[in-house]
Amino acid sequence: MKERIETFKRRLEAAAGKRKADLLLMNVRLVDVYTEEIRPASIAVYDGRIVAIDPAPGTEAERVIDGGGMYAVPGFMDAHVHVETTLLTPEALAEVIVPWGTTTLMVDAMEIANVAGEEGLLAMVEGAEKLPFRMFLEIPSRVPTAPGLETTGGVLGPKEVRSLLERNESVSLGELDPSKVLDLKDEYLEKILTALDNGKICNGHAIGLGPLELNMYASAHLTDDHECVTFEELRDRLRTGISVFIREGSSERNAKRLLAGVAEHRLPTENLMFCTDDKHVQDIAAEGHIGYNVKLAVEAGIDPVKAIRMATLNTAKHFRMEEHLGSLTPGRLADILLLPDLKEMRPAMVIKDGMVVAENGRAVPVPAKDYPARLFDTVHVSETISEESFTVTSEGKRARCRVIDLIPDQIINNAAEAWFDVCGGKIAADPARDLLKLSVVERYGKNGRVSTAFVRGFRLERGALAASVSHDHHNIVVVGTNERDMLLAVRELQRLHGGFAAAADGEIKASVALPLAGLMSPEPAATVMAQMETANAAVRALGCPMSAPFMTLSFISLPTVPELGLTDVGLIDVLAHTTCPLVLETEE
Amino acid sequence: MKERIETFKRRLEAAAGKRKADLLLMNVRLVDVYTEEIRPASIAVYDGRIVAIDPAPGTEAERVIDGGGMYAVPGFMDAHVHVETTLLTPEALAEVIVPWGTTTLMVDAMEIANVAGEEGLLAMVEGAEKLPFRMFLEIPSRVPTAPGLETTGGVLGPKEVRSLLERNESVSLGELDPSKVLDLKDEYLEKILTALDNGKICNGHAIGLGPLELNMYASAHLTDDHECVTFEELRDRLRTGISVFIREGSSERNAKRLLAGVAEHRLPTENLMFCTDDKHVQDIAAEGHIGYNVKLAVEAGIDPVKAIRMATLNTAKHFRMEEHLGSLTPGRLADILLLPDLKEMRPAMVIKDGMVVAENGRAVPVPAKDYPARLFDTVHVSETISEESFTVTSEGKRARCRVIDLIPDQIINNAAEAWFDVCGGKIAADPARDLLKLSVVERYGKNGRVSTAFVRGFRLERGALAASVSHDHHNIVVVGTNERDMLLAVRELQRLHGGFAAAADGEIKASVALPLAGLMSPEPAATVMAQMETANAAVRALGCPMSAPFMTLSFISLPTVPELGLTDVGLIDVLAHTTCPLVLETEE
Repeated sequence: MKERIETFKRRLEAAAGKRKADLLLMNVRLVDVYTEEIRPASIAVYDGRIVAIDPAPGTEAERVIDGGGMYAVPGFMDAHVHVETTLLTPEALAEVIVPWGTTTLMVDAMEIANVAGEEGLLAMVEGAEKLPFRMFLEIPSRVPTAPGLETTGGVLGPKEVRSLLERNESVSLGELDPSKVLDLKDEYLEKILTALDNGKICNGHAIGLGPLELNMYASAHLTDDHECVTFEELRDRLRTGISVFIREGSSERNAKRLLAGVAEHRLPTENLMFCTDDKHVQDIAAEGHIGYNVKLAVEAGIDPVKAIRMATLNTAKHFRMEEHLGSLTPGRLADILLLPDLKEMRPAMVIKDGMVVAENGRAVPVPAKDYPARLFDTVHVSETISEESFTVTSEGKRARCRVIDLIPDQIINNAAEAWFDVCGGKIAADPARDLLKLSVVERYGKNGRVSTAFVRGFRLERGALAASVSHDHHNIVVVGTNERDMLLAVRELQRLHGGFAAAADGEIKASVALPLAGLMSPEPAATVMAQMETANAAVRALGCPMSAPFMTLSFISLPTVPELGLTDVGLIDVLAHTTCPLVLETEE
Repeated sequence: MKERIETFKRRLEAAAGKRKADLLLMNVRLVDVYTEEIRPASIAVYDGRIVAIDPAPGTEAERVIDGGGMYAVPGFMDAHVHVETTLLTPEALAEVIVPWGTTTLMVDAMEIANVAGEEGLLAMVEGAEKLPFRMFLEIPSRVPTAPGLETTGGVLGPKEVRSLLERNESVSLGELDPSKVLDLKDEYLEKILTALDNGKICNGHAIGLGPLELNMYASAHLTDDHECVTFEELRDRLRTGISVFIREGSSERNAKRLLAGVAEHRLPTENLMFCTDDKHVQDIAAEGHIGYNVKLAVEAGIDPVKAIRMATLNTAKHFRMEEHLGSLTPGRLADILLLPDLKEMRPAMVIKDGMVVAENGRAVPVPAKDYPARLFDTVHVSETISEESFTVTSEGKRARCRVIDLIPDQIINNAAEAWFDVCGGKIAADPARDLLKLSVVERYGKNGRVSTAFVRGFRLERGALAASVSHDHHNIVVVGTNERDMLLAVRELQRLHGGFAAAADGEIKASVALPLAGLMSPEPAATVMAQMETANAAVRALGCPMSAPFMTLSFISLPTVPELGLTDVGLIDVLAHTTCPLVLETEE
């Protein structure tokens, strides 16, 4: 404490002008999110924090930057993001998001937690102070997502969640889907009470809920929702005291519609903020990150200062960090963007902790980080796996089977059915009818299970695709026209310690190594983007017309997204929360 | 935890309409502080919390209230109040404030803490759940206010403050005056860091600070100020990220001026809230409590919903209690006012925890509470005190002495001087020139010290007044024309265990017993008001023209309000933070 007090004192001395500042940012137009004014100002920074607005004339500083009359705004904050789905480490992601002005992420790292539990989660934020953006943790509330219906590498029970919520990096209990609450499950109610006990909020995920269900959801102290699609949904949530994170991700593009409604109905914006949830690197590179949401808000007719406030102060307040973030005022961390205009929201300079971390669209290089060796060794496919592991057996000559029928561009699917020929007691894939085999291979060395079902929609003419990214359990999921290529693709992922692989005709056609927890690459963003393009091209050559086949593959096995899921435990009837038989009927 | 989960479940079942509600409030116009809409609604309550807005038709309830189309608004919150200065216990105060719609007080109980430390503080909130309003604690940051310059009954050092901040009832570190921070005092910086460590905010008291000093004040993480007098001060605070509690007390009447500025400049109101700080019972009874601030806001031209929001949601957010208070939404405590109109802000019905606690200006009777016996025994004047104790000695024939020169209606004073005759080595009071003796008698049985000085302004022609309420140390302060009556008045306070007393001509003329910590009466509000009127009349009969002589007396000895103070340690030169001699010069 003594040392902290001395540090505190030095900062206050700098605030009083009795100690040289580290940085003096002169000649900016300060966007004040408290008064909603824009006014000429200068900003003094010491030890990573703003210590004075318009310090006394003659204030000295180690470094002086002339803002050239640009707008100074607080660094943008993403209220809810799954970093792992970018396939990049935070270090690599920095290069992509920081030049766009995002300096704080509220990270729900449920993917790595499902693979590697508490250790994985903490490895994400360990040493994060060296990053050019900040990460705070929304502690995953459902690891696993479907207890009993899937095998995961990590488990976060009430005890683990409690210990994580007590940590300084944690800001909330991570998104809790409706069934956990509406079905009154003890484990999740306990986690909610624990979050409240620790003074932390509970993030929601109120997909599709109407006003009556929202009464129950809000009663459970879930404080926000990032799944709104319509303005009416957004308003219903505000009316029940639930804040809304307006999401603009890669597949979920909700911002324009929601913001148009907010502008049209002149709704107060204080309880609205922004998130990306899941946004692919190429989309970020092309259009921006949270700044893009802000830009859309301004285009929708919302006052620019209020739009900026949605991306800054509102988020900081929501997560109870107003004394540290969200405004350009003394005491706050010195995360400052200089914007040439308030239309494009594209910073010419990005400052974090009082240091320039990006200029004119380019990030200052980020040092690589050593992750624990164990996290590079999370793919443990059973030794005994063979082509036979993907066999579907049946009696009779013909069999009526369930089929997971994909809906283009959506993660939900239809529970369809089809008749198959049975040959020697086995059922093969039927590429001619686009009826492929889909298998999930347990990859944590816990039980070696393999489950197989049928899927329609990939349109592979030959070969197989495998992924160790498969929400939320992240076992290996593999789709194929034949068992040989399926096995080959799985073995390739074993060799790479995770990633994506395409095999055909007995050879590997392309692969992307994601050895960090089987989810992320240690390579820079540009490398990973290039690898993905190559792999996608290889998949298209096998007949699959999807733009992002591995992404589709990675969401297909979810045991919580209707109607059918597939896990190592078996085929899942999602709405019934139970396994269901693949073969429904046989004929002689 | 098991039991808490079961309780939680029952509430969620009620939210789902699967369990009978306790209360169904039908047919109200709900004032929605999130969307700023006013819309017809019904509200279901279970186990003290709102569980549904517009529950499903057919929802059953133990009790149904027809709101008759009245406005339903959240219970009003006072962001900063010293309960003890009302002279009433919280139980007695309830009768006065609850009918006006105040259902939550953020209490800085620094008075009782100065008398009885942690024990006194906790006695205030012990059993508070039976009150018709809620109390949360702003943990006093300065007990004593002037260490080394005064003797107090209680001391709250960093250790005590830490343990208090860890409690659920505590919401902040209580108001810290500028000098503690601007002078970089370790003890207070440690208390601030401790509050932040506990996720609590730090209340400010930025009296008179300009922009440059505010940089330092905000850098110290002080998050609010209730001392603004001008609109420019208010705006300066918002510009440095400091929220403003707009105060309307008895002597400090800041609301009209501040609100006029806010309305004129169309300033955002999200970081503005309301407090009373110190408001006398008779003023509350005459004009109202926090609802009066709301009324003034509407009169100033602020939208009524925003004005209500300032008294509710803004305060709840500021103190990080949004999930429990500040809005009429599910999950929140059922503190609801029914208002016939949005102009007078005078509730026809007040509901707290889902129960009617006041109707048509009358509170439901509040059960008396047993305070610890020790708190009724806090006045321990030394046995050896005598008329001689008030003697001022001097050499020579004449002496030039310092005089505390009162300024009418202000708590600051001028450091004046006057020549006195010395008779037998002693100096007597000189009522003809309005130069009276003022003494402070240590009353905690710690050292028995008595200090004496001279004061001008009371205009007593005879007799003496004594008070055991004397900020912030609350020793006995006595003013008089002669030592005999001074001693008599002090002895009367000893007999009463504290209070106010007037003596003249060797007898007690009037007294008010305040035996709870020597600060508060256990009697109902009406009784105390009547006693005070009688006592004030008795004082006027002694020649003193003041409207509230005991209030003046109780602020006179403050060692922190310029220019002179008087404590048991001696005469205090406030600006120099030190004692100073009473006699400046003598003549033979």
